[in-house]
Amino acid sequence: MYNQTAYEMGASGCTIRELAAFGNMRAQIVGAENVFDFTIGNPSTPTPQIIEDTIRAVLADMDSLKLHSYTSAAGDLATRQAIADDLNRRFHTDAKPEELFLGCGTSPELAAVFRALAQPGSEILTLAPFFPEYAPFVEGAGSKLVVVPAKYPDFQIDPQAVADSITENTVAIIVNSPANPTGVVYTRQSLEALAAVLTQKSAEHGHPIYIVADEPYRELTYGAEVTFIPHVYKDTIVCYSYSKSLSLAGERLGYIYVPAFAADSKDLYTAISGAARAIGHICAPSLWQKVIARCASAQPDVSEYDRNRRTMYESLTAMGYEMPYPDGAFYLFVKAPEGDANAFLERAKKKDLLVVPGDGFGCPEYFRLCYCVSHDKILRSLPIFESLMKETR
Amino acid sequence: MYNQTAYEMGASGCTIRELAAFGNMRAQIVGAENVFDFTIGNPSTPTPQIIEDTIRAVLADMDSLKLHSYTSAAGDLATRQAIADDLNRRFHTDAKPEELFLGCGTSPELAAVFRALAQPGSEILTLAPFFPEYAPFVEGAGSKLVVVPAKYPDFQIDPQAVADSITENTVAIIVNSPANPTGVVYTRQSLEALAAVLTQKSAEHGHPIYIVADEPYRELTYGAEVTFIPHVYKDTIVCYSYSKSLSLAGERLGYIYVPAFAADSKDLYTAISGAARAIGHICAPSLWQKVIARCASAQPDVSEYDRNRRTMYESLTAMGYEMPYPDGAFYLFVKAPEGDANAFLERAKKKDLLVVPGDGFGCPEYFRLCYCVSHDKILRSLPIFESLMKETR
Repeated sequence: MYNQTAYEMGASGCTIRELAAFGNMRAQIVGAENVFDFTIGNPSTPTPQIIEDTIRAVLADMDSLKLHSYTSAAGDLATRQAIADDLNRRFHTDAKPEELFLGCGTSPELAAVFRALAQPGSEILTLAPFFPEYAPFVEGAGSKLVVVPAKYPDFQIDPQAVADSITENTVAIIVNSPANPTGVVYTRQSLEALAAVLTQKSAEHGHPIYIVADEPYRELTYGAEVTFIPHVYKDTIVCYSYSKSLSLAGERLGYIYVPAFAADSKDLYTAISGAARAIGHICAPSLWQKVIARCASAQPDVSEYDRNRRTMYESLTAMGYEMPYPDGAFYLFVKAPEGDANAFLERAKKKDLLVVPGDGFGCPEYFRLCYCVSHDKILRSLPIFESLMKETR
Repeated sequence: MYNQTAYEMGASGCTIRELAAFGNMRAQIVGAENVFDFTIGNPSTPTPQIIEDTIRAVLADMDSLKLHSYTSAAGDLATRQAIADDLNRRFHTDAKPEELFLGCGTSPELAAVFRALAQPGSEILTLAPFFPEYAPFVEGAGSKLVVVPAKYPDFQIDPQAVADSITENTVAIIVNSPANPTGVVYTRQSLEALAAVLTQKSAEHGHPIYIVADEPYRELTYGAEVTFIPHVYKDTIVCYSYSKSLSLAGERLGYIYVPAFAADSKDLYTAISGAARAIGHICAPSLWQKVIARCASAQPDVSEYDRNRRTMYESLTAMGYEMPYPDGAFYLFVKAPEGDANAFLERAKKKDLLVVPGDGFGCPEYFRLCYCVSHDKILRSLPIFESLMKETR
C-alpha cells in the first residue's frame, strides 16, 4: 500500500552510487590512492575563504533569533537585492528582488518550475545528453520528458532537431550550459538559433515555449563566454545554485529568476511559489541566505579545475580518445573506443578506474569523466587510459 | 500557459501574512511596541548556545570540502546514528540509521511521505482543527484531505468520528501532537483509542492505515507526557523538525523515521526516498547535519514559553475566555466570545491586537494566539483582551 512510481524511483539503482560502493570496496583492498574514481561531481576546491569567514561574522554580529528564523518563502529581501545587484552588474540586466525566488538548489527549483508549467499532456524538451534527474523532476511534476537527439560530435544545439521535437504540447525546453555531462558551453550562435526556433514555434502554437535555464555551472568556465540566456530569449526562467560555484553542494541554496520581460512573468512567479509550497518549500536555509547577502559577488577559483581539465583533455585526445571541447563545468564526455561505454567500464573496473557510462544521459556510446580529483591522481591515471585505448587496437 | 492549481496555491492570500502586513503598517503609525501581534509562530527563544558553539567548532575542526559536500540523500550516517541513539535513549526504542531519512523540515518531509502513500482515489485524514498547509501537501501529492470533525471542548481525539471518516480509500491519518493550533497534547488514552480504531479498520479493509505523526512541537511541553506514537501504533511514520525545538525554523533540518516494525517498512522507506527525489530533495543542509551529529540530544529551554503560557491561560480564562488546556507547543486556541473569530479579529484590529481566525484551521468560531512574544507585551495586552470580552456583554 505505497505508491509504485515513488517506490520505483527510490529503488532504481543509481549507477553512480553503485560505482561509489565498488570504489570503496576496492579501496579497502588496494588502497584509496590506487582507485581512480572519476564518477562523482562533488566540488574538489574548497569554498572561498570569505564564505566561512562570513559564517563566523553573521554568528558574531547578528541576533541569533533573526539569523535562524523563517524568512519569507521567496527569501530575505536583502539577499534577493544583493543577488539582483550582482546580476545587474555582471550581465547589464535589470533584475529586481521581486523577480527572484530563493530555493534549495536547482533540483527543487526545477521541480517547482516544472510543476508550475505542467498542463494536461504537456511536454518538456531536453537536449541529449542530459542530466538523468530531469526525468523524475519532469515526470514527477506531471509532464512528459522529450529527448532531443544529440548533435554529434560537438554537442552544440541542432535547431532543426529541436524544431522537429516541438509539438503543440511543448511548454518548455531545458538548457543546461555549461552542460552536465559534456562540459560544453553553448555558443551564442547556438542559443540564437534555438531562440529563433522557439520564437517561431511559440507563435505557431499560440503560447510561449519557455527556456528553463539550469545553471549550476555558470561560473565554472575557462575562458568561454557563457551567454546570459534571457538576453537572447526573453521567455527564460533561470534556475541557479551555489552548489558548484561556491563549493557548497550539500548546503542547498540557489535562486529562480523570472525576468519581468518573460511572458506572463508575474503569474508564472506566483505559480512557481505555489508549486514550491505544494512540495513543502518553506524557505532556503536562513543562515546561508544571510551569508549570500554579504557574498553575492564571490567567485570561485577555477585554476585547479582548469589545470585538471587541460591535462586530461590534452592527454586523452593525444591517445586517440574523442570528446567535445570542454569549456565549462568539470566534466569530459568521452567516446568509448569500442563504441559501448558499459563495455569500456567493465574493462576499466578491472584496472580500478571508474567512469559513468552515458546511457543514463541518453548517449550510450560515451562515458562521463569528472575531473574533481587530485592532479596527482589524474597524472597517475593516464597510463591506465592509455592501456585501455591500446586494448581496443 | 502555467498550471492553474499552482497559480491558485501561490495566489491564495495567506491570512497570517496579510495580518503581518497590517501589523507592520500600524507599527509605523503607533510604534511597534503598541502592536500586539499574536499571529506568528516564529520561536522567540534563541537557539541553545551549544548550537552556535558547534557551528564554530565544525568550521574550525572539519575539512571544509567534507563539511559542505553532498551527503547521501538519506543523510550522513553519523548524524542518523546520533539521532537513533538519542531516540533509543529517550524512548526505549530500537531505531537504526537505516530507518531514518534526514529531510529539510516537516513540510517537505510530509510532502514526500504523502506522495509515497498516494494511490488512485486515496484519502488522508486530518483531525480538526489542523495546520492549513496539510491541504496543499496532501492534494499536491495526489490524495484527498478528509477532515475529521473536532472534538469539543478538549480537542482530544474522537475515535468514533475517526471511524466514521475512514473508507476503503483511507491510507493514513495525520496526528500532530502537541498540536498546532490548539497546543493540546493527545493523551495516551486518546492515542490508544485511535490505534484500536485504525487496527480494526486496517483489518477490515485489508491494508494498513498509517499514522503520519507530524512532530515539530514534540519537545515543547510543560509537564505532560508526549506519547511516542510508534509505541502505541506500530504503523506510524514520524516526521520531525528542529525548527521549533532548537529555534532553527529557517534552517530546514529534520528527519523521517520509518520504524522497522511498521507494515512494509523497507518498501515504504524506499518509496519515500523516491518521492523525495521526485520533488528535488538532494540532502538536508550539510553544515546542519554536522551540527546535529554532535548535538542530537540538545533540548530547548521552555521556561520563557511556559511563563507566557501560564500568564495568558490563567488571565484569559479568568476573563471568561474558553480554550482547551495548552500542554504543549506555543499556541492557545480560544473561542471567540461572539462565536465568530473573524468578527472578533475585526474588533481586535481596532485596538491593534492581532490573532489568527480559526476558519483556515477548520474551526471558524475559534482563534489562534501564538505566545512567542515578550512577557511584557503579554502583560500589556491583557487589558485589551479584557475590554474585547466586555464589549460582548
